[in-house]
Amino acid sequence: MLVLGIDPGVSVTGYGIIEELGGRLLHVYNGGISSSLNNPFPHCLKEIYADLEKIISDYSPNVMAIENLFFHKNVKTALKLGHTRGVAILTALNAGLDVYEYSPMEIKQAVVGYGRATKDQIQIMVKELLNLPEIVPFDPSDALAVAICHIHSTNMREALKKSI
Amino acid sequence: MLVLGIDPGVSVTGYGIIEELGGRLLHVYNGGISSSLNNPFPHCLKEIYADLEKIISDYSPNVMAIENLFFHKNVKTALKLGHTRGVAILTALNAGLDVYEYSPMEIKQAVVGYGRATKDQIQIMVKELLNLPEIVPFDPSDALAVAICHIHSTNMREALKKSI
Repeated sequence: MLVLGIDPGVSVTGYGIIEELGGRLLHVYNGGISSSLNNPFPHCLKEIYADLEKIISDYSPNVMAIENLFFHKNVKTALKLGHTRGVAILTALNAGLDVYEYSPMEIKQAVVGYGRATKDQIQIMVKELLNLPEIVPFDPSDALAVAICHIHSTNMREALKKSI
Repeated sequence: MLVLGIDPGVSVTGYGIIEELGGRLLHVYNGGISSSLNNPFPHCLKEIYADLEKIISDYSPNVMAIENLFFHKNVKTALKLGHTRGVAILTALNAGLDVYEYSPMEIKQAVVGYGRATKDQIQIMVKELLNLPEIVPFDPSDALAVAICHIHSTNMREALKKSI
């Protein structure tokens, strides 16, 4: 299973691809799409769509995993975040990928084992779990975290099915 | 000039196409794309993209005009609204249309002549300005209003250029 994790953001949309092979997590690729301040916001959306479309076409992930957001303390940021998140989800669906959504708490629980973990703790655990040579910046690290969460959740669901 | 106006919404995304011919406003088409409660939200986004893509391909508008939103009283709604708005803008840009954004006050000013007009007043003025046989529902009516606003603003900008 090849999973594309997405961390949509107002200034950077992080992405990370992880493969699960025989129960092991293998890091494939990660990065961030910057919404340049010199580029009008609508054009940033077009760039997110085009870049994600290329990543999906290059790596052929099976599914997309993305953080589910119901709340944000700043309405203006929530509105902007909605735009990038909507475009990311659309790109995946248009490319034929299934989209899975996880709450911030589920992601933290899956990666750190603690639903109230800090961003730094996630970053360290992502590095450890994927055996990376160094810590990855926040946006791609959060994207890798949601991909890890999807793999854990899928394994858990399958294990539960077998045990019934 | 053929203008596609868009009113993105959480439950219905309204659209309206208006042609300006020799200074007259001609109504071409209007409708709404419902985000069905039985359809998961990501799939509603895909539907909005596909439906708008078809409308653009069928009617070949020159530009898209859409309301600019910086605030919403409900954060949850703002997040959802951001998704549909982002997808609508992306559809236009991917189809090669320029996108113009207008504030709610600019739209009301252009259609009713009063920046604090009510939704009902907009509805009545849209019917009058486009010489429609009857009142159009709120969502497509608001979409037609933003298209009217774009035509007025463009004419105003051109008149100003000539007078300089």
